[in-house]
Amino acid sequence: AKATSEPHGAHTDWLTLNIGGRLFTTTRSTLVSKEPESMLAHMFRDTNVWGNKQDRHGAYLIDRSPEYFEPILNYLRHGQLIINDSINIRGVLEEARFFGIEPLADQLEAAIKSSQPPDDHSPIS
Amino acid sequence: AKATSEPHGAHTDWLTLNIGGRLFTTTRSTLVSKEPESMLAHMFRDTNVWGNKQDRHGAYLIDRSPEYFEPILNYLRHGQLIINDSINIRGVLEEARFFGIEPLADQLEAAIKSSQPPDDHSPIS
Amino acid sequence: AKATSEPHGAHTDWLTLNIGGRLFTTTRSTLVSKEPESMLAHMFRDTNVWGNKQDRHGAYLIDRSPEYFEPILNYLRHGQLIINDSINIRGVLEEARFFGIEPLADQLEAAIKSSQPPDDHSPIS
Amino acid sequence: AKATSEPHGAHTDWLTLNIGGRLFTTTRSTLVSKEPESMLAHMFRDTNVWGNKQDRHGAYLIDRSPEYFEPILNYLRHGQLIINDSINIRGVLEEARFFGIEPLADQLEAAIKSSQPPDDHSPIS
Amino acid sequence: AKATSEPHGAHTDWLTLNIGGRLFTTTRSTLVSKEPESMLAHMFRDTNVWGNKQDRHGAYLIDRSPEYFEPILNYLRHGQLIINDSINIRGVLEEARFFGIEPLADQLEAAIKSSQPPDDHSPIS
Repeated sequence: AKATSEPHGAHTDWLTLNIGGRLFTTTRSTLVSKEPESMLAHMFRDTNVWGNKQDRHGAYLIDRSPEYFEPILNYLRHGQLIINDSINIRGVLEEARFFGIEPLADQLEAAIKSSQPPDDHSPIS
Repeated sequence: AKATSEPHGAHTDWLTLNIGGRLFTTTRSTLVSKEPESMLAHMFRDTNVWGNKQDRHGAYLIDRSPEYFEPILNYLRHGQLIINDSINIRGVLEEARFFGIEPLADQLEAAIKSSQPPDDHSPIS
Repeated sequence: AKATSEPHGAHTDWLTLNIGGRLFTTTRSTLVSKEPESMLAHMFRDTNVWGNKQDRHGAYLIDRSPEYFEPILNYLRHGQLIINDSINIRGVLEEARFFGIEPLADQLEAAIKSSQPPDDHSPIS
Repeated sequence: AKATSEPHGAHTDWLTLNIGGRLFTTTRSTLVSKEPESMLAHMFRDTNVWGNKQDRHGAYLIDRSPEYFEPILNYLRHGQLIINDSINIRGVLEEARFFGIEPLADQLEAAIKSSQPPDDHSPIS
Repeated sequence: AKATSEPHGAHTDWLTLNIGGRLFTTTRSTLVSKEPESMLAHMFRDTNVWGNKQDRHGAYLIDRSPEYFEPILNYLRHGQLIINDSINIRGVLEEARFFGIEPLADQLEAAIKSSQPPDDHSPIS
């Protein structure tokens, strides 16, 4: 079903993001469809409006953490929030907030709250 | 035995996948033989039918997670599902479903179910 | 709010750091604004003063650990100290000291002290 | 002692392996000396006999997992089997078998057996 | 203080090591100063004496593990032995011995001994 409704590579606008030095290849559709009200969607909906700067290879430069952006891009691809145990959720939350993806930020905040013991105020988890 | 039955590099069609920005080099045979009914096999069985788009270096573009695709490619290579402890199995399941590899998706769902305590409803594991 | 106050890529000075062989792409603003008194800020505030050497692709060479620099760059981006469990905090502390980011070094020292049992004198944690 | 008996780079035949898309640089001597009866040693002992295919940069293409090959290459370098905790030993075993390194496969099988509780039949560890 | 005594990039001899396929950028000073009696220091003290072979981009080829070399290079940079929990210390020890850095090898052996229960004879830790 998925195969017929989403032909791969046909009629899709591919682009590469250079996030803090690491390259992510995705489609414009992934960046704008799942969360159309996010800042990230606004950045990539209309080409040339935001003045996104590109590196010499044409990748869009974003001055953020690649490691913590990865689960966000996966969320935009399939709608599931999936994070490895070794990744600090607070890092993902910072990126979700920066890119203005509010439903994801709420979900991450709830996950952090439920994973933290009530009396823990440590700055590093 | 393996050495004589599978000569390396001889008579094999090599290709590179650009999955979300990371490159995977494999053979067409790996992608189509182990799970011939999967969407992934269909995508690569007949060249030029699916209109798979290629990047400037000829790698086939797929807008998915490289990290969670890795165990799937290994499964197609040797038939074993092997996942490191640090990898969230739910991420691998999303890719197995996307690529339409049903026996693998079933195996992953069973593994998730057996690893989860009965009352755990947390969105992130 | 963030979207309108910080247009991405417009009027920003992008640069790449080659830290021990790994590339980090960021803006001069990130390196000099959050901690203006740090050595790192001094190194990049005035171009050509410090004689920072560049590699053949124009990335600034710094002979330090890329792995432990990563959380420091994220801290300069958004002001939060976020470290994955798998990363040895003492490694991040060495970089914070090297780059002369005193508030961060203090925060890291406190985190190390609070995570260490009182009688542990082991050289490796 | 090692320094005088093994001059680095002198009289050595360097080659690069492209394993599943990741590059490993080593010497022919490493691949053929430690385990001369392995399939891997046979593949690289006599140039041009096996018809190993090379990528555009001259690296030898092998359609296997780079992550699980890494400890195998280290074993061939110094004779010690060393695996990080985060790596699934079963993945290394699959590669040891594929490359026909029998003493290593035996060692890995023993390690898996000793690490598994007697009643555990889970497909994923 | 550090800033004035060690001007970055000025009067420094930068070089790149290709260790098993991964690139490390550092200075000759880092490789020879901290442990002047080590084999590594001897290899890089006098150019062209050891016949170190270089790859096509001028990086010095060394047939060893990049992953376990990383903490060794950091040690040469700042004198501290810092290892992430996920890294097998025995791997770092093999590299310290290979490069002939005796004080580091002793420190690593002590750390391994103190972390091992007295009756554990398992080949893999």
